[in-house]
Amino acid sequence: MRLFASDNVTGACPAVVEAVLSANAGLAASYGEDYWSTALRAKFSEIFETEVEVFPVLSGTASNALALAALTPVYGKVYCHELSHINTDECGAPELLTGGAKLIPMRGANGRIVPDDLAQAIRGRGNVHVPQPAVVSITQACETGTVYRPSEILEIAAIARDHHLKVHMDGARFANALSTLGVTPAQMTWQAGVDVLSFGGTKNGCFVAEAVIFFKPEMAENFDFLRKRSGQLISKMRFVSSQLLAYISDDLWLQNAMVANKMAQKLSRGMAALPDIELAYPTESNEVFVRLPDYLIGGLRAKHRYINEDELDGKAVRFVASWVTTDEEVQSLLDDISQCILGAKA
Amino acid sequence: MRLFASDNVTGACPAVVEAVLSANAGLAASYGEDYWSTALRAKFSEIFETEVEVFPVLSGTASNALALAALTPVYGKVYCHELSHINTDECGAPELLTGGAKLIPMRGANGRIVPDDLAQAIRGRGNVHVPQPAVVSITQACETGTVYRPSEILEIAAIARDHHLKVHMDGARFANALSTLGVTPAQMTWQAGVDVLSFGGTKNGCFVAEAVIFFKPEMAENFDFLRKRSGQLISKMRFVSSQLLAYISDDLWLQNAMVANKMAQKLSRGMAALPDIELAYPTESNEVFVRLPDYLIGGLRAKHRYINEDELDGKAVRFVASWVTTDEEVQSLLDDISQCILGAKA
Amino acid sequence: MRLFASDNVTGACPAVVEAVLSANAGLAASYGEDYWSTALRAKFSEIFETEVEVFPVLSGTASNALALAALTPVYGKVYCHELSHINTDECGAPELLTGGAKLIPMRGANGRIVPDDLAQAIRGRGNVHVPQPAVVSITQACETGTVYRPSEILEIAAIARDHHLKVHMDGARFANALSTLGVTPAQMTWQAGVDVLSFGGTKNGCFVAEAVIFFKPEMAENFDFLRKRSGQLISKMRFVSSQLLAYISDDLWLQNAMVANKMAQKLSRGMAALPDIELAYPTESNEVFVRLPDYLIGGLRAKHRYINEDELDGKAVRFVASWVTTDEEVQSLLDDISQCILGAKA
Amino acid sequence: MRLFASDNVTGACPAVVEAVLSANAGLAASYGEDYWSTALRAKFSEIFETEVEVFPVLSGTASNALALAALTPVYGKVYCHELSHINTDECGAPELLTGGAKLIPMRGANGRIVPDDLAQAIRGRGNVHVPQPAVVSITQACETGTVYRPSEILEIAAIARDHHLKVHMDGARFANALSTLGVTPAQMTWQAGVDVLSFGGTKNGCFVAEAVIFFKPEMAENFDFLRKRSGQLISKMRFVSSQLLAYISDDLWLQNAMVANKMAQKLSRGMAALPDIELAYPTESNEVFVRLPDYLIGGLRAKHRYINEDELDGKAVRFVASWVTTDEEVQSLLDDISQCILGAKA
Repeated sequence: MRLFASDNVTGACPAVVEAVLSANAGLAASYGEDYWSTALRAKFSEIFETEVEVFPVLSGTASNALALAALTPVYGKVYCHELSHINTDECGAPELLTGGAKLIPMRGANGRIVPDDLAQAIRGRGNVHVPQPAVVSITQACETGTVYRPSEILEIAAIARDHHLKVHMDGARFANALSTLGVTPAQMTWQAGVDVLSFGGTKNGCFVAEAVIFFKPEMAENFDFLRKRSGQLISKMRFVSSQLLAYISDDLWLQNAMVANKMAQKLSRGMAALPDIELAYPTESNEVFVRLPDYLIGGLRAKHRYINEDELDGKAVRFVASWVTTDEEVQSLLDDISQCILGAKA
Repeated sequence: MRLFASDNVTGACPAVVEAVLSANAGLAASYGEDYWSTALRAKFSEIFETEVEVFPVLSGTASNALALAALTPVYGKVYCHELSHINTDECGAPELLTGGAKLIPMRGANGRIVPDDLAQAIRGRGNVHVPQPAVVSITQACETGTVYRPSEILEIAAIARDHHLKVHMDGARFANALSTLGVTPAQMTWQAGVDVLSFGGTKNGCFVAEAVIFFKPEMAENFDFLRKRSGQLISKMRFVSSQLLAYISDDLWLQNAMVANKMAQKLSRGMAALPDIELAYPTESNEVFVRLPDYLIGGLRAKHRYINEDELDGKAVRFVASWVTTDEEVQSLLDDISQCILGAKA
Repeated sequence: MRLFASDNVTGACPAVVEAVLSANAGLAASYGEDYWSTALRAKFSEIFETEVEVFPVLSGTASNALALAALTPVYGKVYCHELSHINTDECGAPELLTGGAKLIPMRGANGRIVPDDLAQAIRGRGNVHVPQPAVVSITQACETGTVYRPSEILEIAAIARDHHLKVHMDGARFANALSTLGVTPAQMTWQAGVDVLSFGGTKNGCFVAEAVIFFKPEMAENFDFLRKRSGQLISKMRFVSSQLLAYISDDLWLQNAMVANKMAQKLSRGMAALPDIELAYPTESNEVFVRLPDYLIGGLRAKHRYINEDELDGKAVRFVASWVTTDEEVQSLLDDISQCILGAKA
Repeated sequence: MRLFASDNVTGACPAVVEAVLSANAGLAASYGEDYWSTALRAKFSEIFETEVEVFPVLSGTASNALALAALTPVYGKVYCHELSHINTDECGAPELLTGGAKLIPMRGANGRIVPDDLAQAIRGRGNVHVPQPAVVSITQACETGTVYRPSEILEIAAIARDHHLKVHMDGARFANALSTLGVTPAQMTWQAGVDVLSFGGTKNGCFVAEAVIFFKPEMAENFDFLRKRSGQLISKMRFVSSQLLAYISDDLWLQNAMVANKMAQKLSRGMAALPDIELAYPTESNEVFVRLPDYLIGGLRAKHRYINEDELDGKAVRFVASWVTTDEEVQSLLDDISQCILGAKA
């Protein structure tokens, strides 16, 4: 039972399906010169309240690594949290696509970079022996399921600007963070100092659709070539653009995120109320991280519940809610856990 | 009017659409551990009459560049035709993903490598100053719309084997070549000495679906990591695998290719029968290359016919038929051309 | 006054000079097929009591990065100390020359990796999302001036072997470590489990001479090509080989190292005996790291003593003794410090 | 007998030896902040009659590949002759150090790019599928031993400028070309439109000394980092800088080149006057390329003359004169050839 294993076990939501079917009628220009790709840029510009450059790509890994490639020289340093996806889960894609830039893993509670730590860590400019400070990358919502407040982003971006660094945001769960914070997309990005956003659609209702969004068009100057040479420029671009277009229209993305977040809250509160379970991080988006005793892990597995093995060792067990998660499913999981606990106490 | 501009202006065919919709029901394991990805491997193994390893990817460029990355050391040489897609149309993706291997462009009539030329060109093994001969890559159907005969592939592969080179086939239009030759997939690939195939689905009826297929599993050993770090491992893999599964089932791919090839033949013969037009290459798949006088180019543009600018200079004008092309559309294009010619002669 | 600033402010020692002059008589085959290069391999094999492969290169950075490139796949992880030269002082050379491998910085007292920490850190084998554990790199003598005991190396190498990792040693100050420990070159390397050594000559009596030494020839199979494509294969190789040959003959390297270490000991003890100075690390080779109060830093600068700025911030001030350092020079530095202290107390 | 095998079988000339010995006295700042490195920049600026940026490196391969890395984006095209050293003899170093740029091999008589061919070849700007035109690289004296006239360089550079390309000159045998043409260094470089020069010293009297010279300082902005991360920034830089400083002082480089060229001329004329020998290219520097019948190759080998195997196949046999070559040695070689011919005719 893959339920709660991840938000990428879900399919695409009806409006996205409809959009792809609709884009499939007739012929269209290839490589992004189609109607949907053009409309997508306009729609994103409207949503972000500024002119943006938009480059659809096929995976979050590519989206992040290519964004970094646009922002750092080959001898650059990218400051990131040690738990960040770019640092731990992309099998070296950032190193490959940037041509060898160096990720600098930073500590910080709840998976978030601490501004003061960043200020301390940015060193070595002009020292030829040292990769040069170039980018800071933050994840929103971050890998622990918590979110940066806009004031935190502002603070981090101010430090970055003072040191001539660019600011990248990994927004694989951008909509979830937005829904939690109740701010505008602009407030959470360029108005807070973000230069480039890796915008995720796949986890929250698309088939496969991500995009790199530049808030400063001059930084996107060479991006077409970077995307092409990484194999992320697909010929039938309309089939990605149309997904994203539907996804960000009519508040679909926010509604999906709201469901996912709400179900995660329910799950989180339910678990926190039980004995023997400890929340590993505050639940601020659609991911719930808990520390479970071994008997509970065994018990849940006996009930065919999926336990994320990668997270077990030293970290925590992750349960992910998504736009398809229902009250009943959450309750059923909580019931299973309660039964395991009762059984153990008996 | 994008008709005939390319085969990537088309959408996905009904059975592929159906397959994606069907795969969209319910949850599925991510990163290729789903039903469709497993079934795809079995189906490809059946079609190729041998156990193959299959890695779906998102673009032909990625498919080619990653296949090469699996076959060459970073200091390797990849022999290819100077007109090959990997040499001319991938913006350096092979160089990037192989870590710096060197493409050696070769001449040869009709876009095809001449076995004797290859034998002559393979030099420098063990010479430390020289990138080391590693791979020969051929395109089937090739970039001029012609096809290698199995005997030619055999001969090229024999030379490769003699010199310890691997053999890669760019099969972006694999089905079209197969349809032309009337041989089996096995005969056109591993039985002729091909080690790895970049198998194309996008141009012939899929939304976006390519795959790297290894005929010798031991060569695929590290491919999972190469694919991941290039950003081509997508989480919801079922949506690519299901396309390919439908595409290679029930002879769909061959039927689509047969239509495209037949329409190209009709167009080619129709054009060849007209004055002032010269076929640039024999028409052996779904692409027709012709040399047109300027007045015809101007005339067709005046009729809003798409003329591929890139091909004009020194090469030829390309018209591409596809699985959606109809007799009427071919006739209409031929009529337009005839009118232009008549007008010019008047 | 650059004295004590580094061991690379020194020139070459007389026997090395003589060797180069002698190699300069007459013609010689290029690219390492000369007498000296051949003799060098034999001499290193004798010294290490096993057949080794030797590849002279021009810089420590190249020596390290190329050694790693021979040991890790492009998607590999290299475990190293966070203070290691490869992690902090090579401007991304390891990332470039390995094709994107990822350095995993580890903590550990006195700049040395703790075996247990390494065992904990090696994770993710077979997980496609994660760069694959490939190499552990240790520096001997390490960046803090301390040395690994052979038993520590054995322990680290055993963990590495258990996890199928290769073991690299950065031996920029190899002779200094050897001199401290009083063991044989074999005991400190391959007998303790080291696979590849970056052997340094420049800092301890050569003009410019480093070498990558393989204890398992099969690992060196492709190294000729890796070296060439990085620009480290020089035509007149004899002028590097002859330096190294003289350097490792007649115990020259050990004598030079002994002088340097002894002078460092004298300096270290002298400083430790003074008020207001704290040794940052035990002095176990030719580098002395101390924490100095600001007034002392200012005072020494006023006396035109070189203070290494890079080391000041959060770390310590470094003084380096070398084969040219004399008792008088050490005493003179100690006297200057004493004067500063007395002045401040007055 | 390596005589005539190459100019890199020679040692260093007395003034260069003297300079190194002199630089070896005492301590000096490392990493290029020494007296000799500073003086070198001033001397080169004087010689080139303009302010230049100078970066000593260790090999011609590194010098070329790093210069290209400074001039091309990672997705760039470098136009070069198909016989150029960067294309044939650097084992992929340009591809590695540029991060994947693509060399475009061009034909052209006598190893030289034909301006009209270049103008034709520069295509694809702005086309995302195509690596972007970025650099043209010429070799002076070129790989066939001929030289570009300043007017040819001007013409090539004008085409480059029209298309926004940078101009690189591989000057491994710069002095030889200069000596042949009797022009000034400025006339042969920046006044003719060259942006960056890979200046060679090793082949013409140095131990190991090359330099990348920028005529437009703004292009050198990031070069320090590129050089460091490739492992070409050595700590004891004075030992390279001092070689180059002596080499370009007191017309030493030109005198050495004059001897080499003169001996090559004598050899070339002598051979051309003999039956059965055909000059492959005009002799315009210190290299003589001839086509020899098999019996002559065999005969010379029987006399222990070195025949360059790499050049035999499809190309020509190469004899290289150098600053140490004497009249007697040339005559002796000619005599050997004559004897072989006479023997064969007998």
